[in-house]
Amino acid sequence: MFDLQQYLKEKTALVNKALERSLPAADARPAILHRAMRYSVLAGGKRLRPILCLAAAEAVGGNVKNALTSALALEILHSYTLIHDDLPCMDDDVLRRGKPTSHVMFGEANALLAGDALLTLAFEWIAKTIPPPPYKPNQIILELAKAAGSMGVIGGQVEDLAFERKKPDAATVNYIHMHKTACLITAAARIGGICGGAGRGELKALGKYGEKAGLAFQITDDILNETSTRKKMGKAAGSDRARGKMTYVAVHGLEKSRQAALRLAGEAVRALQPLKGDKQALAALVDFIVTRKL
Amino acid sequence: MFDLQQYLKEKTALVNKALERSLPAADARPAILHRAMRYSVLAGGKRLRPILCLAAAEAVGGNVKNALTSALALEILHSYTLIHDDLPCMDDDVLRRGKPTSHVMFGEANALLAGDALLTLAFEWIAKTIPPPPYKPNQIILELAKAAGSMGVIGGQVEDLAFERKKPDAATVNYIHMHKTACLITAAARIGGICGGAGRGELKALGKYGEKAGLAFQITDDILNETSTRKKMGKAAGSDRARGKMTYVAVHGLEKSRQAALRLAGEAVRALQPLKGDKQALAALVDFIVTRKL
Repeated sequence: MFDLQQYLKEKTALVNKALERSLPAADARPAILHRAMRYSVLAGGKRLRPILCLAAAEAVGGNVKNALTSALALEILHSYTLIHDDLPCMDDDVLRRGKPTSHVMFGEANALLAGDALLTLAFEWIAKTIPPPPYKPNQIILELAKAAGSMGVIGGQVEDLAFERKKPDAATVNYIHMHKTACLITAAARIGGICGGAGRGELKALGKYGEKAGLAFQITDDILNETSTRKKMGKAAGSDRARGKMTYVAVHGLEKSRQAALRLAGEAVRALQPLKGDKQALAALVDFIVTRKL
Repeated sequence: MFDLQQYLKEKTALVNKALERSLPAADARPAILHRAMRYSVLAGGKRLRPILCLAAAEAVGGNVKNALTSALALEILHSYTLIHDDLPCMDDDVLRRGKPTSHVMFGEANALLAGDALLTLAFEWIAKTIPPPPYKPNQIILELAKAAGSMGVIGGQVEDLAFERKKPDAATVNYIHMHKTACLITAAARIGGICGGAGRGELKALGKYGEKAGLAFQITDDILNETSTRKKMGKAAGSDRARGKMTYVAVHGLEKSRQAALRLAGEAVRALQPLKGDKQALAALVDFIVTRKL
């Protein structure tokens, strides 16, 4: 039987070691900037996006090695979104993963610039892998740019802020969750597939898997944020609700949210059907996404 | 004789029209984000970086068309740096090119995110051009990422802030100017050359040209900022000095700064010697850089 805990342990170690080695040294000029970049990226976290990327490469019969640099790029891009999200003009959070946020540690300007630098570095890293034919050499860069851009993650962040303290509605929360969260998770699955040489049908399947898994991830986040104290995240129960954020739970209630997460998880697993490689990890990861406690 | 004014007029119109057409529509969701992106990019400006990029392509015998998308990417990347530079936690400027800055118009969070989105879009655009052999397909993306990253433009911004109100010294001001300004201008020249199919010697020459021209540009900026009222920029004379910024003029005085700009301009023009195409525009642009009044 597939041992997800062992898989997560191995892949997390692989990603962490590669990040540690690949990020600019803490004493490279300007040292405060590189310390800030390393501080946020190496603060831990589930490494969900890079691990999904690696697992997607395996699920199409590809080699994890060919997807590693792209996986790291996804993680540092995710780190930049967290740093900017935490800034005083955004969510104004002082804790992240139980540690002081970047602007608390390094000042607002350096946090802003550390985020900018991680976003820039993500494109440097993603550009290092030229995917195999029939993919175009620039395909994975375009995938990442679209997923992370104004009609992807950033679009979701803008609407998330615009609808704070407004009456929750299903269409808006769906837009926000699809863009702010599911876009990058979908990109992680697709990019892993491209690096692994996915066929056309496989790539489409990975996209569907990513969307469903991404939405399930965010709904689970909303549920956890409503019900658990999540002390390690530095968040209090109901903090998103207190802030007037539009959550899936606020629109649909806890019970329907739980059902939706499980339904999406099932759809994500079924989407894997066309994949020709080892898809055990992708299937197990969905399970992890909806059953995690953090 | 080469008519620089006519050249600038034509190329500015080309760049402006292409930007207008290529940016996401103002009513695309989220509309406030796309309006903010268009507001800053289409606010005017000298379009120096894209024009240098186009001129560099011509100077190696290449076609302007092949460099256009990259030229636009350089301009929107520059726009993002201005939006983030103007934020309250950075320079806290309320005017830029005589108009309210992005955060004044759209709020801090949207300005931050508009900058992030322009940076992301710059990589989407730059990835659209695959340069001709012997260049690698990802070469121009890597050039842009390095120039814009933590050891390029962003590194310069961090040190610019770190040395505010410190005693000016020549080595520090050189680091800041080389990184904050010259890195992207050098990238503009090199990327234009790569798109135009520059030979190895030509590319090296363009890099040298860009460094010298970029440094001359920033020194001229320091001089103008010290001596002119620059009403159109929304800046008062001496505003950088008042803020305690480390300028070339603060270290070396006005007269030596003027001499340095002219010396660098001469070096930039001499660096063009190995180029095999029409290099009149690149030569004239250096002249414009050190003699402009805005």
